[in-house]
Amino acid sequence: MSGTLFPKGGPNPAGAYFTGQSYLSALSEAGVQIFNVTFEPGCRNFWHIHHAKSGGGQILLCTQGRGWYQEWGQEPRELHPGDVVNIPSEVKHWHGAAKDSEFVHVAVEVPGEDYSTQWCEPVSDEEYSKLP
Amino acid sequence: MSGTLFPKGGPNPAGAYFTGQSYLSALSEAGVQIFNVTFEPGCRNFWHIHHAKSGGGQILLCTQGRGWYQEWGQEPRELHPGDVVNIPSEVKHWHGAAKDSEFVHVAVEVPGEDYSTQWCEPVSDEEYSKLP
Repeated sequence: MSGTLFPKGGPNPAGAYFTGQSYLSALSEAGVQIFNVTFEPGCRNFWHIHHAKSGGGQILLCTQGRGWYQEWGQEPRELHPGDVVNIPSEVKHWHGAAKDSEFVHVAVEVPGEDYSTQWCEPVSDEEYSKLP
Repeated sequence: MSGTLFPKGGPNPAGAYFTGQSYLSALSEAGVQIFNVTFEPGCRNFWHIHHAKSGGGQILLCTQGRGWYQEWGQEPRELHPGDVVNIPSEVKHWHGAAKDSEFVHVAVEVPGEDYSTQWCEPVSDEEYSKLP
Protein backbone atom coordinates (compact mmCIF):
# COMPACT_ATOMS: atom_id res chain seq x y z
CA MET A 1 0.00 0.00 0.00
CA SER A 2 1.60 3.25 -1.12
CA GLY A 3 0.01 5.32 1.65
CA THR A 4 -3.17 5.77 3.63
CA LEU A 5 -5.97 8.02 2.41
CA PHE A 6 -6.15 9.82 5.77
CA PRO A 7 -3.07 10.51 7.92
CA LYS A 8 -1.59 7.28 9.32
CA GLY A 9 -0.22 8.74 12.55
CA GLY A 10 2.16 6.97 14.89
CA PRO A 11 2.05 3.64 16.71
CA ASN A 12 -1.33 3.12 18.36
CA PRO A 13 -1.29 4.20 22.03
CA ALA A 14 -3.79 1.38 22.69
CA GLY A 15 -1.36 -1.13 21.17
CA ALA A 16 -1.34 -3.22 24.36
CA TYR A 17 -4.84 -4.36 23.36
CA PHE A 18 -3.86 -5.28 19.81
CA THR A 19 -2.13 -8.37 18.42
CA GLY A 20 0.43 -7.09 15.90
CA GLN A 21 1.23 -3.54 14.84
CA SER A 22 -1.37 -0.79 14.37
CA TYR A 23 -1.24 2.96 13.84
CA LEU A 24 -3.64 5.66 14.98
CA SER A 25 -4.31 9.27 14.06
CA ALA A 26 -7.02 11.60 15.36
CA LEU A 27 -8.89 13.10 12.40
CA SER A 28 -11.31 15.23 14.39
CA GLU A 29 -12.35 15.95 17.95
CA ALA A 30 -14.82 18.71 16.96
CA GLY A 31 -17.88 17.31 18.72
CA VAL A 32 -17.45 13.79 17.37
CA GLN A 33 -14.21 11.87 17.84
CA ILE A 34 -12.96 10.40 14.58
CA PHE A 35 -9.82 8.30 14.20
CA ASN A 36 -7.94 6.65 11.37
CA VAL A 37 -6.76 3.14 12.29
CA THR A 38 -4.23 1.20 10.22
CA PHE A 39 -3.65 -2.52 10.86
CA GLU A 40 -0.62 -4.29 9.41
CA PRO A 41 -1.32 -7.73 7.89
CA GLY A 42 -2.35 -10.15 10.67
CA CYS A 43 -3.00 -7.34 13.15
CA ARG A 44 -6.31 -7.24 15.04
CA ASN A 45 -7.57 -5.83 18.28
CA PHE A 46 -8.63 -7.87 21.31
CA TRP A 47 -12.26 -8.68 21.88
CA HIS A 48 -13.78 -5.53 23.38
CA ILE A 49 -17.03 -3.87 24.39
CA HIS A 50 -18.06 -0.22 24.10
CA HIS A 51 -20.14 0.47 27.18
CA ALA A 52 -22.55 3.40 27.52
CA LYS A 53 -25.64 4.10 29.62
CA SER A 54 -27.26 5.46 26.46
CA GLY A 55 -25.98 5.97 22.91
CA GLY A 56 -22.39 4.96 22.35
CA GLY A 57 -20.83 2.41 20.03
CA GLN A 58 -18.68 2.98 16.99
CA ILE A 59 -19.08 3.27 13.22
CA LEU A 60 -16.32 1.93 10.95
CA LEU A 61 -15.80 3.31 7.44
CA CYS A 62 -13.44 0.97 5.60
CA THR A 63 -11.04 2.74 3.25
CA GLN A 64 -8.23 0.39 2.23
CA GLY A 65 -7.15 -3.24 2.20
CA ARG A 66 -9.03 -6.29 3.46
CA GLY A 67 -10.14 -6.99 6.99
CA TRP A 68 -12.56 -8.64 9.36
CA TYR A 69 -15.24 -7.75 11.89
CA GLN A 70 -16.77 -10.27 14.25
CA GLU A 71 -19.36 -10.09 16.99
CA TRP A 72 -19.28 -12.66 19.80
CA GLY A 73 -21.15 -15.80 18.74
CA GLN A 74 -21.54 -14.61 15.14
CA GLU A 75 -19.78 -15.49 11.88
CA PRO A 76 -16.90 -13.17 10.92
CA ARG A 77 -17.73 -10.55 8.27
CA GLU A 78 -15.12 -9.84 5.61
CA LEU A 79 -14.51 -6.13 5.02
CA HIS A 80 -13.48 -4.21 1.93
CA PRO A 81 -13.09 -0.53 1.01
CA GLY A 82 -16.48 1.19 1.01
CA ASP A 83 -17.97 -1.09 3.68
CA VAL A 84 -19.60 0.44 6.76
CA VAL A 85 -19.94 -1.35 10.11
CA ASN A 86 -22.33 -0.15 12.82
CA ILE A 87 -21.08 -1.47 16.16
CA PRO A 88 -23.71 -1.12 18.87
CA SER A 89 -22.70 -0.48 22.45
CA GLU A 90 -22.62 -3.53 24.76
CA VAL A 91 -21.73 -5.94 21.94
CA LYS A 92 -18.46 -7.87 22.36
CA HIS A 93 -16.51 -7.76 19.09
CA TRP A 94 -13.13 -7.40 17.37
CA HIS A 95 -11.87 -6.00 14.08
CA GLY A 96 -8.62 -6.05 12.19
CA ALA A 97 -6.68 -6.95 9.06
CA ALA A 98 -6.72 -10.12 7.02
CA LYS A 99 -3.60 -12.22 7.42
CA ASP A 100 -2.25 -11.26 3.99
CA SER A 101 -3.42 -7.63 3.72
CA GLU A 102 -3.05 -4.32 5.45
CA PHE A 103 -6.41 -2.86 6.48
CA VAL A 104 -7.44 0.73 7.17
CA HIS A 105 -10.68 2.12 8.55
CA VAL A 106 -11.98 5.38 9.91
CA ALA A 107 -13.63 4.94 13.33
CA VAL A 108 -16.40 7.35 14.33
CA GLU A 109 -17.17 7.28 18.06
CA VAL A 110 -20.90 7.54 18.64
CA PRO A 111 -21.41 9.92 21.58
CA GLY A 112 -22.84 8.20 24.63
CA GLU A 113 -23.47 8.72 28.30
CA ASP A 114 -20.65 7.36 30.50
CA TYR A 115 -18.83 5.95 27.45
CA SER A 116 -16.04 3.50 28.17
CA THR A 117 -14.31 0.61 26.40
CA GLN A 118 -13.72 -2.72 28.11
CA TRP A 119 -10.86 -4.76 26.68
CA CYS A 120 -11.23 -8.55 26.95
CA GLU A 121 -9.16 -11.51 25.74
CA PRO A 122 -7.13 -11.58 22.50
CA VAL A 123 -8.50 -13.26 19.38
CA SER A 124 -6.52 -16.48 19.56
CA ASP A 125 -4.14 -17.50 16.80
CA GLU A 126 -6.22 -20.67 16.47
CA GLU A 127 -9.45 -18.74 15.76
CA TYR A 128 -7.76 -16.12 13.60
CA SER A 129 -5.77 -18.55 11.49
CA LYS A 130 -9.00 -20.18 10.26
CA LEU A 131 -9.93 -16.99 8.42
CA PRO A 132 -8.98 -16.76 4.75
CA MET B 1 -13.40 8.85 -11.78
CA SER B 2 -14.02 5.12 -12.02
CA GLY B 3 -16.26 5.00 -8.93
CA THR B 4 -16.68 6.39 -5.48
CA LEU B 5 -15.05 4.74 -2.46
CA PHE B 6 -18.35 4.71 -0.55
CA PRO B 7 -21.72 4.19 -2.25
CA LYS B 8 -22.63 7.14 -4.50
CA GLY B 9 -26.40 6.91 -4.09
CA GLY B 10 -28.94 8.76 -6.20
CA PRO B 11 -29.48 12.42 -7.04
CA ASN B 12 -29.25 14.55 -3.90
CA PRO B 13 -32.72 15.21 -2.41
CA ALA B 14 -31.36 18.62 -1.30
CA GLY B 15 -30.43 19.39 -4.92
CA ALA B 16 -32.55 22.57 -4.92
CA TYR B 17 -29.85 24.11 -2.73
CA PHE B 18 -26.99 23.06 -4.99
CA THR B 19 -25.68 24.58 -8.22
CA GLY B 20 -25.01 21.66 -10.57
CA GLN B 21 -25.47 17.94 -10.00
CA SER B 22 -24.72 16.16 -6.74
CA TYR B 23 -25.41 12.67 -5.37
CA LEU B 24 -26.11 11.56 -1.81
CA SER B 25 -26.06 8.29 0.07
CA ALA B 26 -26.64 7.64 3.76
CA LEU B 27 -23.73 5.60 5.15
CA SER B 28 -24.97 5.36 8.71
CA GLU B 29 -27.74 6.57 10.96
CA ALA B 30 -26.63 4.51 13.96
CA GLY B 31 -26.39 7.35 16.47
CA VAL B 32 -24.41 9.64 14.18
CA GLN B 33 -25.67 10.55 10.73
CA ILE B 34 -23.02 10.02 8.06
CA PHE B 35 -23.48 10.75 4.37
CA ASN B 36 -21.43 10.38 1.23
CA VAL B 37 -21.71 13.44 -1.04
CA THR B 38 -20.50 13.47 -4.64
CA PHE B 39 -20.24 16.75 -6.58
CA GLU B 40 -19.83 16.75 -10.35
CA PRO B 41 -17.24 19.23 -11.69
CA GLY B 42 -18.46 22.79 -11.06
CA CYS B 43 -21.09 21.66 -8.55
CA ARG B 44 -21.29 23.37 -5.16
CA ASN B 45 -23.89 23.93 -2.51
CA PHE B 46 -25.42 27.29 -1.63
CA TRP B 47 -24.08 29.28 1.29
CA HIS B 48 -25.60 27.68 4.39
CA ILE B 49 -25.52 27.64 8.18
CA HIS B 50 -25.87 24.69 10.55
CA HIS B 51 -27.78 26.03 13.52
CA ALA B 52 -27.86 24.39 16.96
CA LYS B 53 -28.48 25.58 20.48
CA SER B 54 -25.46 23.52 21.55
CA GLY B 55 -23.14 21.18 19.68
CA GLY B 56 -23.96 20.75 16.00
CA GLY B 57 -21.93 21.48 12.89
CA GLN B 58 -20.45 19.04 10.42
CA ILE B 59 -17.14 17.26 9.78
CA LEU B 60 -16.04 16.64 6.19
CA LEU B 61 -13.68 13.77 5.32
CA CYS B 62 -12.46 14.29 1.75
CA THR B 63 -12.01 11.07 -0.20
CA GLN B 64 -11.70 11.82 -3.93
CA GLY B 65 -11.12 14.61 -6.43
CA ARG B 66 -10.49 18.31 -5.79
CA GLY B 67 -12.82 20.74 -4.11
CA TRP B 68 -13.30 23.89 -2.09
CA TYR B 69 -14.53 24.99 1.32
CA GLN B 70 -15.15 28.63 2.20
CA GLU B 71 -16.41 30.39 5.30
CA TRP B 72 -18.09 33.78 4.91
CA GLY B 73 -15.48 36.56 4.85
CA GLN B 74 -12.58 34.08 4.64
CA GLU B 75 -10.34 32.88 1.81
CA PRO B 76 -11.44 29.65 0.09
CA ARG B 77 -9.57 26.51 1.16
CA GLU B 78 -8.65 24.00 -1.55
CA LEU B 79 -9.47 20.41 -0.61
CA HIS B 80 -7.83 17.14 -1.55
CA PRO B 81 -8.27 13.47 -0.55
CA GLY B 82 -7.29 12.98 3.10
CA ASP B 83 -8.24 16.51 4.15
CA VAL B 84 -10.59 17.01 7.09
CA VAL B 85 -12.79 20.09 7.59
CA ASN B 86 -14.39 20.93 10.94
CA ILE B 87 -17.43 23.17 10.27
CA PRO B 88 -18.66 24.82 13.47
CA SER B 89 -22.34 25.53 13.92
CA GLU B 90 -23.49 29.10 13.21
CA VAL B 91 -20.78 29.69 10.55
CA LYS B 92 -22.02 30.58 7.05
CA HIS B 93 -20.11 28.51 4.49
CA TRP B 94 -20.23 26.48 1.28
CA HIS B 95 -18.38 23.49 -0.16
CA GLY B 96 -18.18 21.77 -3.50
CA ALA B 97 -16.11 20.62 -6.43
CA ALA B 98 -13.45 22.44 -8.39
CA LYS B 99 -14.56 23.51 -11.85
CA ASP B 100 -12.51 20.81 -13.59
CA SER B 101 -12.79 17.94 -11.07
CA GLU B 102 -15.38 15.76 -9.45
CA PHE B 103 -15.19 15.92 -5.64
CA VAL B 104 -16.36 13.45 -3.00
CA HIS B 105 -16.51 13.80 0.76
CA VAL B 106 -18.03 11.99 3.69
CA ALA B 107 -20.09 14.33 5.90
CA VAL B 108 -20.43 13.50 9.60
CA GLU B 109 -23.26 15.40 11.31
CA VAL B 110 -22.20 16.51 14.78
CA PRO B 111 -25.15 15.90 17.10
CA GLY B 112 -26.65 19.11 18.45
CA GLU B 113 -29.64 20.45 20.30
CA ASP B 114 -32.35 21.77 17.95
CA TYR B 115 -30.15 21.11 14.89
CA SER B 116 -31.29 22.72 11.64
CA THR B 117 -29.71 23.91 8.40
CA GLN B 118 -30.47 27.34 6.94
CA TRP B 119 -29.91 27.62 3.20
CA CYS B 120 -28.89 31.09 1.93
CA GLU B 121 -27.92 32.49 -1.47
CA PRO B 122 -26.03 30.55 -4.18
CA VAL B 123 -22.29 31.01 -4.65
CA SER B 124 -22.40 33.27 -7.68
CA ASP B 125 -20.79 32.25 -10.97
CA GLU B 126 -18.68 35.44 -10.66
CA GLU B 127 -17.21 34.39 -7.30
CA TYR B 128 -16.87 30.73 -8.20
CA SER B 129 -15.26 31.31 -11.59
CA LYS B 130 -12.32 33.09 -9.91
CA LEU B 131 -11.26 29.83 -8.25
CA PRO B 132 -8.61 27.74 -10.02
